[in-house]
Amino acid sequence: MYIRYTYDQLKRFCCDAFLKFGFTSDEAEKITDVLLLSDVYGIESHGMQRLVRYHKGIEKGLIHVDAKPEVIFETPVSAVIDGHDGMGQLISIDAMNLAIEKAKKSGMAVVSVKNSNHFGIAGYYAKMACDQGLIGFAMTNSEAIMVPTYARKAMLGSNPIAISMPAEPYPFFFDSSTTVVTRGKLEIYNKLSKPLPEGWALDENGKPCSDADRVLKNIVGKNGGGIVPLGGDTEQLGGHKGYGYGMLCEIFCSIFSGGLTSNHTHINGKGGTCHGFMAIDPKVFGDAKALKERFSVFLQELRDAPKAEGAERIYTHGEKEILAYADRMENGIDVNINTVAEMKDLCDYLGLDSVEYLGEVDFSLAKQSSYK
Amino acid sequence: MYIRYTYDQLKRFCCDAFLKFGFTSDEAEKITDVLLLSDVYGIESHGMQRLVRYHKGIEKGLIHVDAKPEVIFETPVSAVIDGHDGMGQLISIDAMNLAIEKAKKSGMAVVSVKNSNHFGIAGYYAKMACDQGLIGFAMTNSEAIMVPTYARKAMLGSNPIAISMPAEPYPFFFDSSTTVVTRGKLEIYNKLSKPLPEGWALDENGKPCSDADRVLKNIVGKNGGGIVPLGGDTEQLGGHKGYGYGMLCEIFCSIFSGGLTSNHTHINGKGGTCHGFMAIDPKVFGDAKALKERFSVFLQELRDAPKAEGAERIYTHGEKEILAYADRMENGIDVNINTVAEMKDLCDYLGLDSVEYLGEVDFSLAKQSSYK
Repeated sequence: MYIRYTYDQLKRFCCDAFLKFGFTSDEAEKITDVLLLSDVYGIESHGMQRLVRYHKGIEKGLIHVDAKPEVIFETPVSAVIDGHDGMGQLISIDAMNLAIEKAKKSGMAVVSVKNSNHFGIAGYYAKMACDQGLIGFAMTNSEAIMVPTYARKAMLGSNPIAISMPAEPYPFFFDSSTTVVTRGKLEIYNKLSKPLPEGWALDENGKPCSDADRVLKNIVGKNGGGIVPLGGDTEQLGGHKGYGYGMLCEIFCSIFSGGLTSNHTHINGKGGTCHGFMAIDPKVFGDAKALKERFSVFLQELRDAPKAEGAERIYTHGEKEILAYADRMENGIDVNINTVAEMKDLCDYLGLDSVEYLGEVDFSLAKQSSYK
Repeated sequence: MYIRYTYDQLKRFCCDAFLKFGFTSDEAEKITDVLLLSDVYGIESHGMQRLVRYHKGIEKGLIHVDAKPEVIFETPVSAVIDGHDGMGQLISIDAMNLAIEKAKKSGMAVVSVKNSNHFGIAGYYAKMACDQGLIGFAMTNSEAIMVPTYARKAMLGSNPIAISMPAEPYPFFFDSSTTVVTRGKLEIYNKLSKPLPEGWALDENGKPCSDADRVLKNIVGKNGGGIVPLGGDTEQLGGHKGYGYGMLCEIFCSIFSGGLTSNHTHINGKGGTCHGFMAIDPKVFGDAKALKERFSVFLQELRDAPKAEGAERIYTHGEKEILAYADRMENGIDVNINTVAEMKDLCDYLGLDSVEYLGEVDFSLAKQSSYK
C-alpha cells in the first residue's frame, strides 16, 4: 500500500529532518535534492526509504554531520578526497564539482573519494556533469553484498556504475549496480513480503535463496551469501563479467583513493564507503555539437528498431526516468506505507509534528516500522 | 578434434601468411603477436580461427593492407584517429601507444578510432598500458550482434570492454563482451556442431534459439535476431545493464570518433569498425607503488575468500589467462581440426607448403573447410 505525496511535501519533510539531524539549510537542501531525484526518477529503493538509514548512521557515529571533505592529493586531471566520514551526498557533490571543473580546464578528470558514506543514486552525480555538457561517470563501493563467482561470501558492494551524456530530446542516463539487482530492491521485496525471483540471491551456504529477509540479515551479520553479480552465480551466463564490472568500480573508488575495499567497509562501527567520479569534455574529440547530434541519432535509431514480439517499445537508458519524472512532478510520488511509518516514527523522535508533514495516515496496514 | 602446435610453429605460419597478404615483416609480427596472445591465453575464439576472416576481409576490400592511420584531432589528453580501413591490429597498437604516451605526460588520455577493422582481443591493448605500469582500457564496436532489450534486431556489436591493471603476483586482466557471450563462441559451437546453451541467442523472430549456424547466418544476413546482452533478454536479470555497458563501449568507440555505430558497420562492402582506448597513470592518485600494493592485497583477499560448495578456487580476472599462457608455452596450443583445414586451404591459396607449416594432417574428421 502506498501513500501519495507531492514533491514539495516530501522536500519539506526531508529538509526539516536533515536540519534536525544538524545540517545547515544549504546542506539539507543538497541532500534532499539527491534523495528526491531518486524518487521522482522511479528508483524507490534509493529515495525516501533510505532516510531512516541515514539517521541511524548519524546516531551510530558512522556519519559525522560536521565533517568537511579534504583534497589530499591532486593534479590537473585528478584528485583524491578524504571525506572524513561525512555525509556521502555532500562529499560527492563537492567531488563531482571538482571533477567537472578540472575536466573543463584539462579535458577530463577523475576524482576518487575515501572515508565517505552512502551517497544515494550514483546517477545524480553523473547527471551533474551531463547538465553542464560533459560526459559524467559516478561509482561507489558499499558494504559487501556481491558474492564473487565461485565464492560463498560477499566481497564486493553493489558497486553501481552511472554514466550520463548529453543528447536530444533527453540525455543518456545509465545507472546500474553491477550485481544482478541492488540491495534496495531486496529491501522493497522484504517490505512487500514478496519472495525474490530466481537468480538474484544466495543464502549463507551459497545456495539460491528467495527469502529477502534472510539474505538481508546475512549481509548485515556478515554470515555469508548475498546477491549474485550481473550474469548470475556461474560463468555460463557471464557472472564473471558482472564481477569484473564490480572490480572496475572498486578500482575507481577504493583502489584509486586508498580507502577501504567493500569487504572492509561497515565493520566495527566504521563506514568507509569510497566513490569514484569522472568527467570528460566532449570538446576533446572535436566538435561537441556534432558529437551530441550523432549520439542523439543513434539513440533514436535504437528506439525505432524493430520490437520483440509483444514488446511495446524499446527504451534507451534514462527514458524511463524522464517519463517517471514528468509523471511524479505532475501527479505526486507514491511512498510505501512502511516507509511512511518510518517517517512518522522519525518525526516523533525528532520532535516534528508528523500530521503536519505526512497528514492523517492509517498505519494499520503497515508492518512494524523498522525504525525502532 | 584438435591438432597441437608449438607457439613458434603457429607464429611462423601466421607471419608468413601475413607477409603473403602484403604486410611488411614488422607489421606481420605485430598482427601475429595480437592473434597468438589470444590463443595462448585460451581465448580460442579470437586467435588462429580468425585468420581466414582477415584474409577474406583483405580479398573483399574491407581491409586495406597499405592504409596508414591518421590522427585527425588531438589534445594533450585525447586523439581521434581515422584508420582509413587499415588492419585493426596495426591501427590499434598505434592508437594505444599514443594513449600511453599522452597519459604519461598528462596523467590520462582517451584515443578514439574510426574506419578500422576487427582488432583481435581487446585485452591485448589494455595489457600494453598495464605492461608500462598504467591502467589500460580498450573497447571496440563490431558488426551488430547484440539485440537490445525488447528489440528483435541486432543493433550493437559484441562491444567488449577490457581493463588491465598492474598487480602482484600477476596483473588484473578483464576482457569481456557486453553480450552474454561473443560471436566467436558461437562459431566454436558451430564448428563443434554443439547446440547453444539456453539464454545465449535469439532467432530472427526474437525467440530463444540454440542453433548456432542459424544465428550466425542471420547476423551476417541482417535477418534479425542475434546474441542477448549480458543479463539476458529481459530486465528481470538485468539485460538492460548489459545493453548499457554495450552503450558505454559504443560511446568511446563510434560516438567519440565520429565513426559508424555498430548497426551501420559491415554494410555494402564497408567495414567501419571503431575502437576506444584509455590509459591512466596511477601516479595521478599519489604513490603508484602503494596503489599497486593495496590492489594486490585486495585481489589476494578475493582469491582467499570462502569457496562455494563444490568450487575449487575463486579466480581473479586474468588468472586463467596466466595459467593458460604457462601451459601453452610449455605444452603447445590445440587448434581445432576445422581451423587447421582452413589454414591448409589458405596455404594452398597463398602458395605456401602446408605440410611444412602444419605437418601431415588427416583431414577426414574435418567438416568442409569454411575457407572456400
